Amino acid sequence: MPIHRYRAFPPIDIPDRTWPTRQITQAPRWLSTDLRDGNQALIDPMSPARKMKMFDLLVSMGYKEIEVGFPSASETDFNFVRQLIEGDKVPEDVTISVLTQAREDLIERTVHSLVGIHHANIHLYNALAPLFRRVVFHASNDEIKDIAVRGTELVMKHSENVLDKTIIGYEYSPEIFTGTELPFSVEVCEAVSDVWQPDDGREIILNLPATIEMATPNVYADQIEWFSRQLTRREFTTISLHPHNDRGTAVAATELAMMAGADRVEGCLFGHGERTGNVCLVTLGMNLFSQGIDPQIDFSDIDEIRRTVEYCTQLPVHPRHPYAGDLVYTAFSGSHQDAIKKGLEDLDRIAAEQGRPVSEIPWEAPYLPIDPKDVGRSYEAVIRVNSQSGKGGVAYILKAEHKLDLPRRAQIEFSRVIQQHTDAEGGEMTPEQIWTAFRSEYLDRETPLRLNSVHTSAAAGEKDQLSVNVYVDGEPTTLAGEGNGPIAAFVAALNSLPQDFDVRVLDYAEHALSAGGDAIAAAYVECLVRDQVLWGVGLDANIVTASLKAVISAVNRAS
Amino acid sequence: MPIHRYRAFPPIDIPDRTWPTRQITQAPRWLSTDLRDGNQALIDPMSPARKMKMFDLLVSMGYKEIEVGFPSASETDFNFVRQLIEGDKVPEDVTISVLTQAREDLIERTVHSLVGIHHANIHLYNALAPLFRRVVFHASNDEIKDIAVRGTELVMKHSENVLDKTIIGYEYSPEIFTGTELPFSVEVCEAVSDVWQPDDGREIILNLPATIEMATPNVYADQIEWFSRQLTRREFTTISLHPHNDRGTAVAATELAMMAGADRVEGCLFGHGERTGNVCLVTLGMNLFSQGIDPQIDFSDIDEIRRTVEYCTQLPVHPRHPYAGDLVYTAFSGSHQDAIKKGLEDLDRIAAEQGRPVSEIPWEAPYLPIDPKDVGRSYEAVIRVNSQSGKGGVAYILKAEHKLDLPRRAQIEFSRVIQQHTDAEGGEMTPEQIWTAFRSEYLDRETPLRLNSVHTSAAAGEKDQLSVNVYVDGEPTTLAGEGNGPIAAFVAALNSLPQDFDVRVLDYAEHALSAGGDAIAAAYVECLVRDQVLWGVGLDANIVTASLKAVISAVNRAS
Repeated sequence: MPIHRYRAFPPIDIPDRTWPTRQITQAPRWLSTDLRDGNQALIDPMSPARKMKMFDLLVSMGYKEIEVGFPSASETDFNFVRQLIEGDKVPEDVTISVLTQAREDLIERTVHSLVGIHHANIHLYNALAPLFRRVVFHASNDEIKDIAVRGTELVMKHSENVLDKTIIGYEYSPEIFTGTELPFSVEVCEAVSDVWQPDDGREIILNLPATIEMATPNVYADQIEWFSRQLTRREFTTISLHPHNDRGTAVAATELAMMAGADRVEGCLFGHGERTGNVCLVTLGMNLFSQGIDPQIDFSDIDEIRRTVEYCTQLPVHPRHPYAGDLVYTAFSGSHQDAIKKGLEDLDRIAAEQGRPVSEIPWEAPYLPIDPKDVGRSYEAVIRVNSQSGKGGVAYILKAEHKLDLPRRAQIEFSRVIQQHTDAEGGEMTPEQIWTAFRSEYLDRETPLRLNSVHTSAAAGEKDQLSVNVYVDGEPTTLAGEGNGPIAAFVAALNSLPQDFDVRVLDYAEHALSAGGDAIAAAYVECLVRDQVLWGVGLDANIVTASLKAVISAVNRAS
Repeated sequence: MPIHRYRAFPPIDIPDRTWPTRQITQAPRWLSTDLRDGNQALIDPMSPARKMKMFDLLVSMGYKEIEVGFPSASETDFNFVRQLIEGDKVPEDVTISVLTQAREDLIERTVHSLVGIHHANIHLYNALAPLFRRVVFHASNDEIKDIAVRGTELVMKHSENVLDKTIIGYEYSPEIFTGTELPFSVEVCEAVSDVWQPDDGREIILNLPATIEMATPNVYADQIEWFSRQLTRREFTTISLHPHNDRGTAVAATELAMMAGADRVEGCLFGHGERTGNVCLVTLGMNLFSQGIDPQIDFSDIDEIRRTVEYCTQLPVHPRHPYAGDLVYTAFSGSHQDAIKKGLEDLDRIAAEQGRPVSEIPWEAPYLPIDPKDVGRSYEAVIRVNSQSGKGGVAYILKAEHKLDLPRRAQIEFSRVIQQHTDAEGGEMTPEQIWTAFRSEYLDRETPLRLNSVHTSAAAGEKDQLSVNVYVDGEPTTLAGEGNGPIAAFVAALNSLPQDFDVRVLDYAEHALSAGGDAIAAAYVECLVRDQVLWGVGLDANIVTASLKAVISAVNRAS
């Protein structure tokens, strides 16, 4: 490895640093930049509908400051800001902000995006770091400072001209703060503050980005403490953090920098954003919660939050993501499971002794930093896999032992089936019992429909022709249909039968159980059968046959 | 949120801490526990073949200490240790270690797993934390200490009896160190050392696990510095870290604890392990590399490392995982791309001025903490998506714009096709041009084979019957075949033609382009056609037709 190309980040000279002796005692002010920094780094940026869903999620969780876009850089972003304002989507207690570069035309455009809002923040940035001065801008320190000063003046001028009914707040970011000489960052920020004139009731937000994470997290804390000490008008200044995660230590850097005096944190849910992402607001908030500090954010249904973010970003949350991943409340080893069981029993004992519900007892259980129930997860999940019990584990057993990768909603449906078994019969279910239950529920039902044979014809430019021999209530019947694809053709034929099955396909998924052309395929079809929504499953070497079996499985289950 | 159930972790009383003033200057000793802590927390634990692949990977990367299992807890682990030793798989400069609890029968079994190895470490643990003493073991402090002392004696006794030709090293873990009173941890560790009698050439490894991460990362550093100061025989003791990632700060906690004096780090590649995982050895090593410190580990082909780990663990590496994720060398925003371009040009200029290759110049480029080439990634990847150029980006464009999710090897193949276009014609390719190239390469070829119509019959208990009308070199031909599934039947029929196409299917994947029964399906088939391995792609509302089109696509491309 060519280590000679790199050098260590120089330490900050602050021997009397105080942050290592401090503790975090309250939540910072949060700003979500999911709709700006997060969105700009997605493979598939959010559509207006997905943006609105993200905005609604953020508001419902309790975020009071939301950066909603970069309106001068993107027509889509401009239109989204207009949609928020004209649709009156921004609650009174929420402040939206918009990002802009320091050019006058861009500032003017940015200001125009905000017409009609009650109050909002404008966020201006320019790059101060020596590498950028030299390589990107070919500009002197004074020229770089002038960009920031002039940009601030222009924000004030155009806001006064255009936004007479709006209270405008101001945020300035000395970009690549982590890679900039600290005295120069202070100098530029002081010059910007000279223009804005912060005062009682007129704050300035100075946002100090770890645009690139460049050193161990203690260095960012040192930088924040150094900056904070040098600053005049500190009491009217909100010091804000904007950490990225290049070294995998963004959460830590944020926490240490909060100890060093920062007031406010910018980040994204589950850490989306450029490259390795912005700092994760979920982890930060839940870290506070786990220490008995109110995060001011509602994480009580963390799975719903995760699902919404996965939908909006089209990117997965990793199974090991703190607090939210699929595996994080799971104990795999027998000794862990045993200790957790004893811990939970002990909590029950204490609760009984004190005559209080368990949810009122201080939480303390082996291997579980928080009670999974506090974020809407369940105890069963904790020992779900290797113990081969509990409702959450069945999906894993089906996958591990039978290569069946059930869609999420099908997992939920089947877990209810298993729950009924365990409730009725008590005790644990072995993998064999789970598989038997799965077969009898999804694969082995033969009434009212049983498949006999399938004949399809597909010709270029024509609709698929399908002929299927089925037993309907034991009577051999030939179903013929046509449609865009065999499932549509089959459902059309089914619905034309006198039995009036009334089937509609809602969702569909399939996969091969192994590689190769002769692999078995699994098909999963979610159907509305009359007024019931349910899944069917089919397995066959022929994927079309598997799909039709899945439809039949759903219909038979509905009967 | 029920914050009243939680309380803040109490601070460590160490006002004269020195670690905040220190810097990391060299790599720690590493131990990989991928085959133990990592493996025990997989949904689908590794098979012997996957374990061996992981072991070989770790050795080839340069790890010199590898925990290979928990032989007394699992027959599979015992057998794997035997396989390593009897197959002479452990290089002379690598030390394997095995974990055991403190019970005599388990220690005896553990010792027997090591017969025949030249040298190895035995790693004994017991839980010291007050919660475990009270809830799990109902034991006093002295009883808990006795377990550790007696366990150490038993390791020595049985090793002497059974392993006369093996040099045995010793590691002791006071489990849940982070949740244990520091003086008690020191007391137990001193008692264990009294038994082992560390000396010059006879080290003891004291491994201090953050079994559960319970506080901000500075607290772990405080704990390590406190412990290290109290310890006698410090010069013969290796202080080892074993951090977990419950609060998302395991990498930071490890780095700060290294500054606090730790000598050795235990973790897993990409942070697998119980719950949120162990600390990530890749991030830690690359963090050192990025500061010009030799990690002593070879990360120069990080994609190959990632693929192997994904294969062994059956779990994905997140696209934003530091240094290794799909997106981490990608700049999405235009201003980032512009700055990177200027930065790379500047490096070229400096290299030319100095008459040295760019790889010899100190690395400094906007938004790129390291040169992606140093880990086998490419510059093209950096601006691959929104710039709509470069070979890595085409897969994203196909996915974002056409919903096509190409298998990894098909992505690589198509990127070469695009590379030929850009090499031949110069300049960038627009998404339209990329799509046109994809169509003409995979979808629009009609010689020698063109599909006309497909007729299939599948009946319960019989092989699939298939009849396909194709044009072969322009001549209408009916192909009839049977097999396990339509692809197998079709390939059999093709191979019986006088043209001797000689096709074999190597891999197969398909997915729907959207939900619903009438969605278009995409099929991808990797074929060996005579001596060429290549992919074919087919799109159709009927998945069978799509699959056959994909086979035809591969055959036509081979001609």
